[in-house]
Amino acid sequence: MRIDVMTLFPEMFDGVFGSSILGKARDKGIVSLNTVNFRDFSNNKHNTVDDMPYGGGGGMVLKAEPIFGAVEHVLEQQAELTAEGKKPRVILMCPQGKTFSQEIARELSEESHLIFICGHYEGYDERIREFLVTDELSVGDYVLTGGELPAMVVVDSVVRLLPGVLGNELSAVTDSFSDGLLEYPHYTRPAEFRGWKVPDALLSGHHAEIGKWRRRQSLERTLERRPELLEQAELTPEERKWLKQARIERAQKDEDRK
Amino acid sequence: MRIDVMTLFPEMFDGVFGSSILGKARDKGIVSLNTVNFRDFSNNKHNTVDDMPYGGGGGMVLKAEPIFGAVEHVLEQQAELTAEGKKPRVILMCPQGKTFSQEIARELSEESHLIFICGHYEGYDERIREFLVTDELSVGDYVLTGGELPAMVVVDSVVRLLPGVLGNELSAVTDSFSDGLLEYPHYTRPAEFRGWKVPDALLSGHHAEIGKWRRRQSLERTLERRPELLEQAELTPEERKWLKQARIERAQKDEDRK
Repeated sequence: MRIDVMTLFPEMFDGVFGSSILGKARDKGIVSLNTVNFRDFSNNKHNTVDDMPYGGGGGMVLKAEPIFGAVEHVLEQQAELTAEGKKPRVILMCPQGKTFSQEIARELSEESHLIFICGHYEGYDERIREFLVTDELSVGDYVLTGGELPAMVVVDSVVRLLPGVLGNELSAVTDSFSDGLLEYPHYTRPAEFRGWKVPDALLSGHHAEIGKWRRRQSLERTLERRPELLEQAELTPEERKWLKQARIERAQKDEDRK
Repeated sequence: MRIDVMTLFPEMFDGVFGSSILGKARDKGIVSLNTVNFRDFSNNKHNTVDDMPYGGGGGMVLKAEPIFGAVEHVLEQQAELTAEGKKPRVILMCPQGKTFSQEIARELSEESHLIFICGHYEGYDERIREFLVTDELSVGDYVLTGGELPAMVVVDSVVRLLPGVLGNELSAVTDSFSDGLLEYPHYTRPAEFRGWKVPDALLSGHHAEIGKWRRRQSLERTLERRPELLEQAELTPEERKWLKQARIERAQKDEDRK
């Protein structure tokens, strides 16, 4: 997979693209991660990439020219490299975009080329949105100073899904959303740390008992923190009983607090 | 404000903490941004920070000792520096945490000291969660290789709210969520780019007309992309009429497609 990021702050990406899983995926040749400073495509004497908004108001607006120029430069390069003719996804990171999810990560991981456009504390000229980008993505309902961190988030979640990137031993624990429930609690050595002990069930050595304890913890934690996820879960009659009991206990605790 | 990040990959933070708004806030002395490699607190011969989970299963689990050690080291340092006695927030970045939002960013921006704990493709020993952290946060429903990018996201959104960090000229355009609606489209020069023109309303010079166009665009975009946000919006009768019309037009388009 090839990934190009259009940004005014390419140096922000060095540490993230060079470390850990992304660095390894790059070293193995599974992904090529590039940054393009779109200031190089400003086509004016003072290298400006933004200008005042038509109609007035505060803030500056990123001009269409440098963004179109930078993206088209990458597309031309790519055309020289491959004859596939498949158009890449051009993804604008912005707060108004579709909320990024694991489902979108999976979808993007099947592409061969992704281009990200990162604005920085400014608006985008609407013509970028209308005539250049294929997707608009937001990573969540909070305000950031630019699209750089959101682009890193999307790149990280997509690249770790590419075949050969994660060892099997790593993928198991982290995939909180794989069965639609939150993870059960984990414990490792020492069995007692400052007087706080690992639950007996986990030390029992009985696989069935451990499995049951984990499933119950997972269900109770999901009930406590993300009850809406339970609507999709497939539950046995015993599991329904656990949840019923947990709901009663919570209601009693709430009563006691009054 | 002081921010400390506990991580096995401190080098990931260099580019982000040194550039743009975060770099400037640091240079101005508004925030002190530090990373601590908790491997330095592993207290064992091989410097291991993780171990196999009790009860079996794939994946590795971050041990309690190095995380407690690293956080307590920072707390001791801080006690030497200030005599305030106010406990800092200790924030665990994890997929099971509360979903980060602009409201939480505002709340955290009023603290004087934040400590972030970033795990990396592993689970956390549950005792960290139970006896050390004050908050668990998630930046969204997608799987990442570690807590580093989420910590950067939270730090960025919090630091930009600190007094003196953003110039007034920057804050206006970006705050998409400030009036609870999505932003209207922005345009800047040239008035015509490759045949694509800026809407006449914005070139008219009539402030009232421009304001009306923008408000209508903002409402229509919110209707199209995030209709649930409209439930909270305060609307005039004219604005309700616009939305009604937009809904009818959408329904007609849907019919035409059948």
